Formats: sequence, C-alpha cells, structure tokens
Amino acid sequence: MGACHGQDAPAHPGPHGYSHDKEAHLKRLRRIEGQIRGLQRMVEEDVYCIDILTQVSAGTKALQSFALQLLQEHLRHCVADAAVKGGDEIDAKVAEATAAVARLLRS
Amino acid sequence: MGACHGQDAPAHPGPHGYSHDKEAHLKRLRRIEGQIRGLQRMVEEDVYCIDILTQVSAGTKALQSFALQLLQEHLRHCVADAAVKGGDEIDAKVAEATAAVARLLRS
Amino acid sequence: MGACHGQDAPAHPGPHGYSHDKEAHLKRLRRIEGQIRGLQRMVEEDVYCIDILTQVSAGTKALQSFALQLLQEHLRHCVADAAVKGGDEIDAKVAEATAAVARLLRS
Amino acid sequence: MGACHGQDAPAHPGPHGYSHDKEAHLKRLRRIEGQIRGLQRMVEEDVYCIDILTQVSAGTKALQSFALQLLQEHLRHCVADAAVKGGDEIDAKVAEATAAVARLLRS
Repeated sequence: MGACHGQDAPAHPGPHGYSHDKEAHLKRLRRIEGQIRGLQRMVEEDVYCIDILTQVSAGTKALQSFALQLLQEHLRHCVADAAVKGGDEIDAKVAEATAAVARLLRS
Repeated sequence: MGACHGQDAPAHPGPHGYSHDKEAHLKRLRRIEGQIRGLQRMVEEDVYCIDILTQVSAGTKALQSFALQLLQEHLRHCVADAAVKGGDEIDAKVAEATAAVARLLRS
Repeated sequence: MGACHGQDAPAHPGPHGYSHDKEAHLKRLRRIEGQIRGLQRMVEEDVYCIDILTQVSAGTKALQSFALQLLQEHLRHCVADAAVKGGDEIDAKVAEATAAVARLLRS
Repeated sequence: MGACHGQDAPAHPGPHGYSHDKEAHLKRLRRIEGQIRGLQRMVEEDVYCIDILTQVSAGTKALQSFALQLLQEHLRHCVADAAVKGGDEIDAKVAEATAAVARLLRS
C-alpha cells in the first residue's frame, strides 16, 4: 500500500488505505445519494415532518458509517505505515486523524 | 396552516409547517445531493482520506441544519397547533418530536 | 404549571416543566456524577484506554438522556403554554428550543 | 511506553498512552464532575430549562474533549506500538479504536 500524502503533497493520486475497496465505498455513497433524493420526494409530496426527520437520521447514520470505514482503513494503512517508517510523521498523522474524529463528533 | 397528520392518518398531503418554504428546503437538499456526488468523485480520484472525512463532516452538518429547520417549523406549527387545540394530542406530538431529536442525537 | 421565564426575566424561581419530577432528575444527575468519579478511578488505576473511552460514551449517553427528558418537559409545558397564551412569545420559545437542540447536536 | 493490554490481558496496570499526562486528565475529569454538580444546583434552584440544557451541552463537550485526548494518546502509543511490533495485533488495535470512535459518535 503506497504511503499516504497530505494536501500539501504533490497532487499524486497515490493509492490510499481505502483504494482497494473503492467500488464498495462508491456503492455506499450512491445509496446515500439515493436517500437524499428520497428526502426531496418526501418534501415535494408534503410527507409528515417527523417521517422526514426519521429519514434524515438514516442518511446521517449512513454517512457516519462510510466515514468510520474510511477512518479504519486510514488508521490501518496511512497511520500504521507512518509508525513503521519511524521519525516524527506519526505525530502529524495521529493529530490529523484525531482532528478528523473531532469534526465528525461535532457535525 | 393545516393540522399535521401522523403516518397512520389517511395519506392526506396536508400542508405542514415546512410547506410554505418548500423551495428553500428542496434547494438545500439538492446542494447536499451535490456534496454526496462530490464525495464519489473524491473516492474515484484517490483523494487523501482525511480530505474526504472533512467533506463527510460538511455533509453531515448540512443534513443536521436541514433537520433543525424542519424541526423548528414542526414545533411552531404542528406542536403549537396541537397545544392550542387542547386535549391530549399535545402529549403525543411532544413525545414524537422528542423521539425525533433523540434519533438525530444518536445518528 | 407556572409560565417559564427566560434569563432576562426577574430571577423568579418559577416552577418549570421539570419541577414536578425534580427528585428523579437529581437522582439521574447524581448517578452521572458517580460515573465521572468512576472515570477518575480508571485513570488513577491505569485502566486500558479503550475501556475508559467506553465509559465516556456511557456518561455522554446518560447526559443526553437527561437533556432529552428536560427538553420533553420544556416542550410540553413552557412551549405549549406559550402557544395557548397566543401572541408572538411562541416564536421566541420555538427558536430558543431549536437552538438548544442544535447545541446538543454539536456537542 | 509499555505495550497496551486489552481487558482479557492479565490485570497488568501497564502504563498506557495517557499515563504520562495523568494529572492533567484527572484535573479535566474533576472539572467535569463539578459541572455535573452545577447541573444539580440548577435543578434544585428551578433554573430555566434552556439554561440547564446549555450547561448539559457544555458538559458533553468537555467529556468529548477528554475522550479525544485519550484517543490521540492511544493512537500515538498503543496503536503505533502495535504497528511497529508487526504481526496481526495492529488489525485488532485498529478495529478496537474505530469501534470506540463509533460509540462516541452514537452517544
């Protein structure tokens, strides 16, 4: 698995932790896209507010599950590779991953 | 503003609290749909994991904002109307709204 | 049930929606206080990090449950009373309750 | 930094990632304990519901911050050490850390 590159790295589409499972991730995202279109239909059809809110929770949960799978692969590959490589890249990788979790918690 | 009906009510597309602002809600949902398609492009282009997670947080936040606006209109119309009408419908409406908030918290 | 007063109202310890169930709320909060002291013991005894994080989730969930019960009573009494009273106090009460839910979602 | 042990390991109070900063963590937890006692006083004094909910959000945020700091140290030490050690312990450590994040998201 190629080492991971941050934004400031050259725009190198290096394979990342999730790359080996790309099709599964894309399938999950297309399903979430369908859920969002489903919400649009509910609003167009004047569906009861609470039923729409229930579907919003389902959409948010699906997005969080996608994020957790990406996080697991990032930890397993990008963060673990940085630990094995040695040096202080691991500190940056761990801080970056923790900040991403903080954003997920606060969204 | 027509009284709100639960799922078991006849499929009566009564206007609900959000109906007067439908176009704004649909616009918001179409933007979220665009964000989800943006996530698909990022996965296809092997973008760095952390950048994708950052966009997931933005998408989740946009969904939560849509939910909060719908909740506000539901409280202002459906719940307030039930209070004014009197009787025990208000208890069911309040329990239902609180359960919807609980699902949002746990998603 | 006395009408609810905002912070800018005279410091009037009016009974609020939750006042009739005060002892149950206090019992719940004392249990959460015990959970936080339990976390301190775990840190003092060098318990494994993941086990501590599991207890943090339990504490957060207990706090959210307390908040949901308070919210339900606030909606049932403070917000419903404002709707019955008429006038524009209901708009402020609904906006205030929605903002409180937004803070819970983002914490 | 000693390797980390899971629950089924012998009850070995090995130092963990957070051990070097124990006093700071304990100070944070004592402050959160004080916030929970503050909530009890607010309920006893019939403070306005929304003001109590605002303090609940502050308490939840403080708990989440404590959890994020513990997670960062766990990733930096327990997970990174497992990666350097080689073998398949890293898979279990990453899965365990991701599951802890999932519980935090859903609480």
